[in-house]
Amino acid sequence: MRAILINTGTELLLGDVQDAHLAFIAREILPLGLRIDERRTVPDSNVIRRTVTELFRRCEILFVTGGLGPTTDDITREMVAQSLGLELHQDAQLLAWLQQRLQLRGIKWSSGIARQADVLAGAQVLPNENGSAPGFYVKANINARVVSPHVFVLPGPPRELQPMFTKFAMPILKSIIEVPLPVERRSYSIAGVGESLVENAIGEKVLAIPGIELGYCARPGEVEVRIIGNPNAIRAADAVIRRELGVSIFSDNNEALEAVVVTLLKERKETLATAESCTGGLIANQITNVSGASEVFLAGYVTYANSAKSDVLNVDSKLIDKHGAVSEAVARAMAEGARGRAASTYGLATTGIAGPTGGSDEKPVGTVYIALASGDSEIVAKKFLFSTDRETFKQLAAQAALDLLRRRLLR
Amino acid sequence: MRAILINTGTELLLGDVQDAHLAFIAREILPLGLRIDERRTVPDSNVIRRTVTELFRRCEILFVTGGLGPTTDDITREMVAQSLGLELHQDAQLLAWLQQRLQLRGIKWSSGIARQADVLAGAQVLPNENGSAPGFYVKANINARVVSPHVFVLPGPPRELQPMFTKFAMPILKSIIEVPLPVERRSYSIAGVGESLVENAIGEKVLAIPGIELGYCARPGEVEVRIIGNPNAIRAADAVIRRELGVSIFSDNNEALEAVVVTLLKERKETLATAESCTGGLIANQITNVSGASEVFLAGYVTYANSAKSDVLNVDSKLIDKHGAVSEAVARAMAEGARGRAASTYGLATTGIAGPTGGSDEKPVGTVYIALASGDSEIVAKKFLFSTDRETFKQLAAQAALDLLRRRLLR
Repeated sequence: MRAILINTGTELLLGDVQDAHLAFIAREILPLGLRIDERRTVPDSNVIRRTVTELFRRCEILFVTGGLGPTTDDITREMVAQSLGLELHQDAQLLAWLQQRLQLRGIKWSSGIARQADVLAGAQVLPNENGSAPGFYVKANINARVVSPHVFVLPGPPRELQPMFTKFAMPILKSIIEVPLPVERRSYSIAGVGESLVENAIGEKVLAIPGIELGYCARPGEVEVRIIGNPNAIRAADAVIRRELGVSIFSDNNEALEAVVVTLLKERKETLATAESCTGGLIANQITNVSGASEVFLAGYVTYANSAKSDVLNVDSKLIDKHGAVSEAVARAMAEGARGRAASTYGLATTGIAGPTGGSDEKPVGTVYIALASGDSEIVAKKFLFSTDRETFKQLAAQAALDLLRRRLLR
Repeated sequence: MRAILINTGTELLLGDVQDAHLAFIAREILPLGLRIDERRTVPDSNVIRRTVTELFRRCEILFVTGGLGPTTDDITREMVAQSLGLELHQDAQLLAWLQQRLQLRGIKWSSGIARQADVLAGAQVLPNENGSAPGFYVKANINARVVSPHVFVLPGPPRELQPMFTKFAMPILKSIIEVPLPVERRSYSIAGVGESLVENAIGEKVLAIPGIELGYCARPGEVEVRIIGNPNAIRAADAVIRRELGVSIFSDNNEALEAVVVTLLKERKETLATAESCTGGLIANQITNVSGASEVFLAGYVTYANSAKSDVLNVDSKLIDKHGAVSEAVARAMAEGARGRAASTYGLATTGIAGPTGGSDEKPVGTVYIALASGDSEIVAKKFLFSTDRETFKQLAAQAALDLLRRRLLR
């Protein structure tokens, strides 16, 4: 079955907002053997109608997102109705629910809001448990005046679309698919090895397996390898990938590196404190994005000023004078200082030059020292050079630090 | 002139990576009076060829991104060549440059890498100063066997595409456009006011101005209002928006809230320290994303454990016992503690319940207290309830904290 996604929204085409629906929906439907064959992004105009109609004969499942809200530029409901040749009528039950919802929140009623109670004739309403605009499902129509695929119309905000999709659209999709194809997908997240080296290690060997599809995707500080194929091919490829990449694989289920680290710390009943200079709190922020991080993460010290390094982390100011704040000696002292201050099992520290200014011949922009202190062994320190923009530098340094800790936790 | 963007990449359609090119290119070309009329995302297959060919008659400018790398799934170069009916030939100069580049980096040569020296006959090479795959520009061809628009083929990684686009594609686009249409665009970033209230304040008044296009976009903790139109209409709409929204507008040039705060602190020659519990370092991370933040940001204390709140921030443990770690009293003590410890002008603190666990009837998940301490006036504290997922909660709390500080800095 062919599936196509249409994202509506002038704000997407103007670059004001980035779409998150494609990634979400694609991952949800893959276990059904379904893929998004194509995605189109169109403005809030009658291009929506033209595009919906054009795609009727090119797919069996059509997802349309966005443009269901209360403002005047929200016209997707009307455009889809026109494409399908269906009337819109106000649903009394939805209207009452909307009125109640707004009253509870103390929001003033307006005529735009009432449009969200308009329902396509014959459509199934997909309740919105996190917002006011409901979604719709219109069954494929192959004998009617307008031949059309299964159409799902979904709200724009990710926090409304995602739970609606999982709870209400997925059961419908499962009933449409009936017997999913025996296709599996696996992905492996790899840290500490570049994309070319990953391909050198596994590329030829995996592609020699009949029926396997292999892809790579590089993100700051990690490479994702994905394989798609029938269960036998997947089993063979999985063995090759695990043999060749071993401990460099940190997840086979799309977990973030920080989530893996939190899980390992929990298992070992150990704790962490961070001392960040150049990463400026990014490591702490990533770790505290993981639910339950409070069990293992005691404190983070973002010691941007040198005085803070000395004051909070007890780094000897003479050490800073002698070696500079960006140095292996200071990274080591910061790691040990954080561990001591928080009384944690591990102290993880970064100090470097994020740029764009502050570099020198000896220590160019992109230089970073990472150190890991633990009670029962020597402090480990590593130097990296990440010559890139400021934000990517921070991401690369944070990933390198988390990976240093992860490898230590596997011992 | 109509412009269309094609993003190639199976990884995009599988949800492994999210596209950033649409947003970047759209913002770059708008000052030329150009917009992306439609965006298509297609897999690394011969759908690329079909799509490129299909769009030849529907636009005057075509951007194609991704699939220029060294791995076997990188086939965009070949697909575009076939669509345009042009030969590919190896460029000796590019090949030598590639060999030198890899040698410098100690990367082993492979046959896949050599494909990156293949050039479309008649195309202009767009040098890649941040990677190995060059881009291409093929001039519009209206009298040839294959009628085609201006075609730009660009590499997939944003850190390669973006500088290439700015430095090499933009000058070509400027020469194509010649006389840009007198269309202007402005956007206003608003904090502390919800989307509906923003529309209530300005919607009718702005839409009453002839020739204005108005749009809204809500992101966690902020609303963006954009207007597009001729210079006269823009001037009239600008006056309405500024009058109605006033100090709630924190930027009219897409600056992030944290960048505005850093600029204000620099102007006032004042400094900041943060004390974060529930936001877990997000505020520090955002602030240190701003280049030059080190001038004003002294230290961040991510005091996740109660012991860290007492130890580093000097919060009386009795206060925590009496009111709980999530309380106005503790938020105030944290703000003052951070200010004292770092000897900064301001101390900004957050304490709350990010969830999904840890809530109670009295203090449900989503509760957060934010406090701001400054030397010359009382500590200000505010309570919010952000009932949402963990990461959105952190974003909303960080935005609310930064906005509290911003409004204080305007005094």
